[in-house]
Amino acid sequence: MSDLEPIKERFKFYQNRVEQAMDSWIPKIKTHPTKLHEAMRYAVLGGGKRLRPILCYATGEALNIPLKQLDGIASALELIHSYSLVHDDLPAMDDDDLRRGKPSCHIEFDEATAILAGDALQALAFYIVTHDKQMQVTAETKLKMIEFLANACGSRGMAGGQAIDLESVGQTLSLMQLEDMHIHKTGALIRASIVLAAMSAKKLNEQQANQLDHFGKCIGLAFQIRDDILDEEGETEKLGKIQGGDRARNKPTYPALVGLVTAKQRANGLYEDAIQSLQNFGDKATLLRDIAAYIIQRDQ
Amino acid sequence: MSDLEPIKERFKFYQNRVEQAMDSWIPKIKTHPTKLHEAMRYAVLGGGKRLRPILCYATGEALNIPLKQLDGIASALELIHSYSLVHDDLPAMDDDDLRRGKPSCHIEFDEATAILAGDALQALAFYIVTHDKQMQVTAETKLKMIEFLANACGSRGMAGGQAIDLESVGQTLSLMQLEDMHIHKTGALIRASIVLAAMSAKKLNEQQANQLDHFGKCIGLAFQIRDDILDEEGETEKLGKIQGGDRARNKPTYPALVGLVTAKQRANGLYEDAIQSLQNFGDKATLLRDIAAYIIQRDQ
Repeated sequence: MSDLEPIKERFKFYQNRVEQAMDSWIPKIKTHPTKLHEAMRYAVLGGGKRLRPILCYATGEALNIPLKQLDGIASALELIHSYSLVHDDLPAMDDDDLRRGKPSCHIEFDEATAILAGDALQALAFYIVTHDKQMQVTAETKLKMIEFLANACGSRGMAGGQAIDLESVGQTLSLMQLEDMHIHKTGALIRASIVLAAMSAKKLNEQQANQLDHFGKCIGLAFQIRDDILDEEGETEKLGKIQGGDRARNKPTYPALVGLVTAKQRANGLYEDAIQSLQNFGDKATLLRDIAAYIIQRDQ
Repeated sequence: MSDLEPIKERFKFYQNRVEQAMDSWIPKIKTHPTKLHEAMRYAVLGGGKRLRPILCYATGEALNIPLKQLDGIASALELIHSYSLVHDDLPAMDDDDLRRGKPSCHIEFDEATAILAGDALQALAFYIVTHDKQMQVTAETKLKMIEFLANACGSRGMAGGQAIDLESVGQTLSLMQLEDMHIHKTGALIRASIVLAAMSAKKLNEQQANQLDHFGKCIGLAFQIRDDILDEEGETEKLGKIQGGDRARNKPTYPALVGLVTAKQRANGLYEDAIQSLQNFGDKATLLRDIAAYIIQRDQ
């Protein structure tokens, strides 16, 4: 596995790209109601790993899809992810005061504004998919994208995963239950980042679609295991959030359940599996492979 | 204007219809994660005036659209409305313990579950429009529906209206500012109920579309003025929420701004305007006219 710095450098191009796209989609601060739009922009712009958009663009590179056709869905995915962070950080949920190295949205503004900013960001994500003129797909495909996205962020996806997470505080989960939680909470939207991008391809055979989907499932789970490992051994400064927060809240984590060594082995195994599923994609899938490497080695 | 009882009797048919439709769309209580689905069902089923679905069906009757083609969008509209009530009732927002005569969602469950149930209901609403097989419209029309709905419930619609509402607590608003708040907060989704149903019509000329849209705008505002009047003079038992709550919270209301008499005159004027805009629709628009009468006479 390679050093992470060159990979992070490559990511910057895509991070800037989606930043510009999202900046153009979210109403300007001066747009009425101003405080709400300010909070929406605060919650989304100027930070974040942008993993979901980068996955979206990387899938596009693997399938020869012009990047401008993916700006809309990359934005929509990151808006959904950002809204979930705003709501997860609320005092009634994870009660996190720090996010992406800045005060959380409800600290910078107030709880009510944070709730509404999250709500409005979700609506905006769906609006973008309907409204974007750059996507060269049929109306039927756009509908399939919205359907997949709505499912991935709803009660049987991301929101459901956060509900399972909250219910599991103080509980002893089996490994299967822990993975079930992760697959819902983080995996569904990471998988959607790849699936939605693949839907934009002019031609895609079933085998390729399945291989990409499998890649998405593997790295989605690996991402969350790495998150748990970082929560255990990372530094607060690098994480941009409080280290050890999950353990302190008595939340079940991979290392708590199987130990750090086994958790790292599991993450590596998922990485190998993910790389294996890209074997037919050649050099075009280099960025996807780099993302997989980044996911299990990252320190933030 | 007629007595309200026969109108309310007629409403029951449509209330039952959308109840069944929503019941079939929201995952059953036994579906994992169970607590979240229980909260979603609690927040939506078994209560409520169902004004938005009834408007949707009534528009369908005025335009000869088979009702089963409208079950999906009627459900989606009511899910969006229900999620907004769950979030509005939260302690950080309006802090209402009572809703539809029952404990609010965050009282019956907890705040975190209420936030997530609202989030998941919004996602489900968009999912329904993409997934519903009964709607006899093209994929292009479905996309237009989702676009209109996302706009109506986002930062420049319903969520924006709630933000304006919260910012205006303790402020002296002009009549124009108060109406601007109402048009965002309640008007946008009421208007969407009519516009989305009209989009389902096989043929609709521009004049008809404009007339229905105008009807929607008039009754949307009239509904909110009536709400303000009821907040001033209604009984808690009938309202199913705390009477005088807005005034107690020092929120600007129509009666507080222009007095009860002028507020009622304004509601009546909007009613007349709404009825006028239906003059070319004949007997088929009877239900729409009944809804307008109900809106400005209702005592809950």
